[in-house]
Amino acid sequence: MAQPLTDTSKLCVHTITTKPWPIETAIDRFAAHGVKGMTVWRDALAGRNIAATGQRIRDAGMSVVSLCRGGFFPALTEAGRQAAIDNNRRAIDEAAALGAPLIVLVCGAAPGQPLSVSRQQIQDGIEAVLPQAAAAGVKLAVEPLHPMYADSRSAINTLEQANDICDAINSPWVGVAVDVYHLWWDPHLQAQIRRCGEAGRIFAFHICDWRTPTEDLLNDRGLMGEGCIPIRQIRGWVEETGFDSFNEVEIFSTRLWAGDQDAFLGRVVEAYLAKS
Amino acid sequence: MAQPLTDTSKLCVHTITTKPWPIETAIDRFAAHGVKGMTVWRDALAGRNIAATGQRIRDAGMSVVSLCRGGFFPALTEAGRQAAIDNNRRAIDEAAALGAPLIVLVCGAAPGQPLSVSRQQIQDGIEAVLPQAAAAGVKLAVEPLHPMYADSRSAINTLEQANDICDAINSPWVGVAVDVYHLWWDPHLQAQIRRCGEAGRIFAFHICDWRTPTEDLLNDRGLMGEGCIPIRQIRGWVEETGFDSFNEVEIFSTRLWAGDQDAFLGRVVEAYLAKS
Repeated sequence: MAQPLTDTSKLCVHTITTKPWPIETAIDRFAAHGVKGMTVWRDALAGRNIAATGQRIRDAGMSVVSLCRGGFFPALTEAGRQAAIDNNRRAIDEAAALGAPLIVLVCGAAPGQPLSVSRQQIQDGIEAVLPQAAAAGVKLAVEPLHPMYADSRSAINTLEQANDICDAINSPWVGVAVDVYHLWWDPHLQAQIRRCGEAGRIFAFHICDWRTPTEDLLNDRGLMGEGCIPIRQIRGWVEETGFDSFNEVEIFSTRLWAGDQDAFLGRVVEAYLAKS
Repeated sequence: MAQPLTDTSKLCVHTITTKPWPIETAIDRFAAHGVKGMTVWRDALAGRNIAATGQRIRDAGMSVVSLCRGGFFPALTEAGRQAAIDNNRRAIDEAAALGAPLIVLVCGAAPGQPLSVSRQQIQDGIEAVLPQAAAAGVKLAVEPLHPMYADSRSAINTLEQANDICDAINSPWVGVAVDVYHLWWDPHLQAQIRRCGEAGRIFAFHICDWRTPTEDLLNDRGLMGEGCIPIRQIRGWVEETGFDSFNEVEIFSTRLWAGDQDAFLGRVVEAYLAKS
C-alpha cells in the first residue's frame, strides 16, 4: 500500500476534468489550487497559439505532463487508416509545440472488423508515426481501455495486451499509461504493473473512481473516494516499480461538470490527498 | 468457424428476453415459434406452482434448460453471506421442482471490499451449497460477467477466473456458462474455452450482441447481428470442445422490450438462424 499523499507536488489534472473551463481559466485556477501538472486535451487548444499556451502553463508554475490524445488507428479502409496516421502526426507536432513530453494513445477499434485485425492496425499505426515522435522527443503511451470500450474505442483492453504490443514494437519511445478506471478489475494487474516496471515503460498514471451504479458508459466517472477502486493500493504497485512522476486526475462526469468548477477543483485536491 | 444453424432444434430463449410476457404466454409463444428450450428466470415463477410450470414447458415440447439465477454470494457481513447461501438453497429447490438440470450463477461482488475477498466468498458460498445441489441433481454454472459489472455483480470477470474457481472447487457439479456478451473482448477467450472443454465444464452457452454505442450498462444488449460480437466464431470454439447443448438467447433490452414481443420473437428466430 502506498503512503498517503501529503502535498500536491505530484498532482496533475487533465483539462477535461474541468471541461467547462477554457484552458486559460484552467491554468489560472489549477495553479491557484496548488496543482503542479497539467495534461492538455487537444480540444482545449482549438484556436490557441499552442507554443504560447505551453509557456503560459509553465509560467504558472506547472509542468505540461502530456497531450491527450492520439491513437484511433484502426479503420475499415486504407484511407481511414492513413487519415488516422496523419492525425497522429499532427498530434506529435502539437505536443512538440506545447512542450509535452508524451502523447497518450487511445488506440481505437473498428466495430466492423475482428479485434485481432484492429490490434495489428494499432501496432502498424504506432510504428508508422514512431520515427517522427522520436525525432520530436515525444513519447507515446498506449493506454489500455476498459473492455466496455472494446467495440469502438480500443482493442487494447488489458495491461497485458499493452505490454505485449510494447514488447512487439520494442522502442524506448513507446510505453503505457496505467489508468485505474480501466484496469482496476483485472486479477493480473499487479503482475502486469511489475512487468511494465521491469521494462521501464510506465509513462503515466491516471486516477479517478468507479461509481456504483455507473449510469453512463462514458461520462459517469467518480472523484477519488466515490467508488470502489483501490486507488492507493494500485498507486503502491506503480510506485514499487520506481515510478515517481505525476498522479493525473482524469474525470469525465456530466454530474461533476454541471456544478461550480472551482468548488469541484477544491474537492479534487481534497480527495487527492485523502483518498488516492 | 461454426457451421450456420439451419433449424431451431438447439434454440433456447430466456424468459427475460421477452420480459413483458408472463411465463404462460412465453411458453405458448416460444413453442409456436419453434423454440426448443427455455431458461427460466426466477422472477417469472413468482406466484406459480413451480413443478406444474416445469411440466407445462415440457408439455409444450421444450426442455427446461436452466434456472437463472443463483449467486450473489459476497456480502460485507456474515449475516449477508448466510442470507445469500439460504437464497441459493431455495434456488436449488426451485430448480429441482422445475426440472431444471442447471442453475446459472451470477456470482456477486460487494463494492466495499476487495475483489479478492469477494472471490473467496464466492468460492465459499458455492462450496456451502454444493452438497445440496449434487443431492438434488442440479449443476451449478459460474458465469463470468463483463468487467463493467465487477463493482457489484460479479468479481469473476474472465473465463480464466471461472476456470480457476472451478479447478479450486473441483466438482463435476460445478462448471461454467459462456456468454458472448461478457467475454467476446478477451484475447484469451479461445484458449480458455479450450481449457473449459478439456475439463468438461461448459454447461451453458449464451448469445446476444454488443451494440455501438451501448447506451445503458444493463439493458441495451443487441439482437444477434446488431453488434460487433463474432458470435459464430465463438460458437465454433465452443462446439470444438464437444459442446452440443442449446444456444441460449439472453437479451436484456429496454428498446426491444418496448415493442411487440411476438414480432420480436420472430426476429430472434431469424437472427438466430442468420447471425449466430
